[in-house]
Amino acid sequence: MIVIGEKINATRKGVARAIQERNEAAIVDLVKTQDEAGADVIDLNAGTGRGDTATSLDDMRWLIGIAMKNTAKPLAVDSEQPELIDGGLAAISGRAAWINSISAESRRLESVLPLAGQYGAPVVALCMGDDGIPKDVAGRMKAAETIYRRAKDAGVDPAKLYFDPLVMPVAADPMAGTMAIESIRAIKAAFPEVKTVMGLSNVSFGLPLRATLNTTFLILSLGAGLDAAILDPCNDNLMMGLYAAEALLGKDTYCRRFIGAHRKRTQKGE
Amino acid sequence: MIVIGEKINATRKGVARAIQERNEAAIVDLVKTQDEAGADVIDLNAGTGRGDTATSLDDMRWLIGIAMKNTAKPLAVDSEQPELIDGGLAAISGRAAWINSISAESRRLESVLPLAGQYGAPVVALCMGDDGIPKDVAGRMKAAETIYRRAKDAGVDPAKLYFDPLVMPVAADPMAGTMAIESIRAIKAAFPEVKTVMGLSNVSFGLPLRATLNTTFLILSLGAGLDAAILDPCNDNLMMGLYAAEALLGKDTYCRRFIGAHRKRTQKGE
Repeated sequence: MIVIGEKINATRKGVARAIQERNEAAIVDLVKTQDEAGADVIDLNAGTGRGDTATSLDDMRWLIGIAMKNTAKPLAVDSEQPELIDGGLAAISGRAAWINSISAESRRLESVLPLAGQYGAPVVALCMGDDGIPKDVAGRMKAAETIYRRAKDAGVDPAKLYFDPLVMPVAADPMAGTMAIESIRAIKAAFPEVKTVMGLSNVSFGLPLRATLNTTFLILSLGAGLDAAILDPCNDNLMMGLYAAEALLGKDTYCRRFIGAHRKRTQKGE
Repeated sequence: MIVIGEKINATRKGVARAIQERNEAAIVDLVKTQDEAGADVIDLNAGTGRGDTATSLDDMRWLIGIAMKNTAKPLAVDSEQPELIDGGLAAISGRAAWINSISAESRRLESVLPLAGQYGAPVVALCMGDDGIPKDVAGRMKAAETIYRRAKDAGVDPAKLYFDPLVMPVAADPMAGTMAIESIRAIKAAFPEVKTVMGLSNVSFGLPLRATLNTTFLILSLGAGLDAAILDPCNDNLMMGLYAAEALLGKDTYCRRFIGAHRKRTQKGE
């Protein structure tokens, strides 16, 4: 299971401020703590919404520069703007760079897919098209199929596609969680070589005990075959739930990773 | 999901002592706290191993008498001895009585299945035969098939059969958890009208953080379609994991049970 650390995201106020004030120490801290906590990929989102594309690209390059110096892990360039993804990928060298994200929206397919092919980058692919987020599993499958076909045409290795079924809040739709989990199974059945990924936290929107719900949803998704998740690796309960699920699903021989994570946590005095 | 409260079990030293000393208050407390914590069925196991069958039957009747007075929930007569199951079922009136358990072992099929038919009792059916616990899913399916066929012959409604795949510790066999989960799916696919049940705690034997592992295993099993579990309903984290999984799997409309359990917990000051 690949953990994509979500914390360096400019939609979070503290991160937006750190970017605007060029507070390098704050970003270094987020890079290092996520790396040490077990992130396999560090996501970088510079979308403060404060300036034009040139400003945003400058922000993205600043984040990448700091991350390159402070972790050896792959970085994910997180933006809806093709120009930022292009510029971000060009600024990363000596390690894998992820694209977060594409979708079946025409403008993103046309502008971002060629970059994925060019850089050989793993891609988070949102299961939505020009009409927004689909209401059912079939709509998600239709978007996945479009992306899969167009990616093949663009020379992208299907094994580098990470489909995100886009879970909606269960507080608004009781079947939202089931729909996302069924989509994981359906995508893996239809396209055995592709991967799946999930942003977890949307599922618990509007409910109490969000951490419990997010951890439970991660475990259920792992049981359905999820390959990667975008999450906060510094959340110990979430990470222990992840390691426990891997141990129970036969993906952690003799529970070495689970026991190791427990020891590390105990040594921290928790 | 049916919760079978496991705490009144004479293999636990405190319970064995309470039975031997006829400490009614101790048993009343275990009945009431499990009932209030959300148990749907209260399991009763009187096997202290201290006396002959007549003594054990006396103990079982004593437990049943206390439970009948202190809860309106169904009771499960938990014993390997057919005489105790027979005597226990006869002593319960005015509510459903469960049999815990039968297996594909010849002696249990011959002596206990007719009682299940006679009393119309739901039955926990262990997926093991005369050769002990099977090593793989196929062996568990063979045991399930034997029980299913013999139950039908004995006039037992298949919808009252709760198959337990018998999970082994993942510390000893990394595939033990997967095997049990796959068995749940295989049993439900082969016999759509039957139910499944799981005793959780064996899976985490020999490992640290057993509560985390047991909760995670319950969530994974629910994702595979588990219908009932034998567990400690007074373990708040386990129960919140259960309610969270049901909410996420579309089995708790508008998360009412999940939110209710959270409120109850908050009111207790936790």
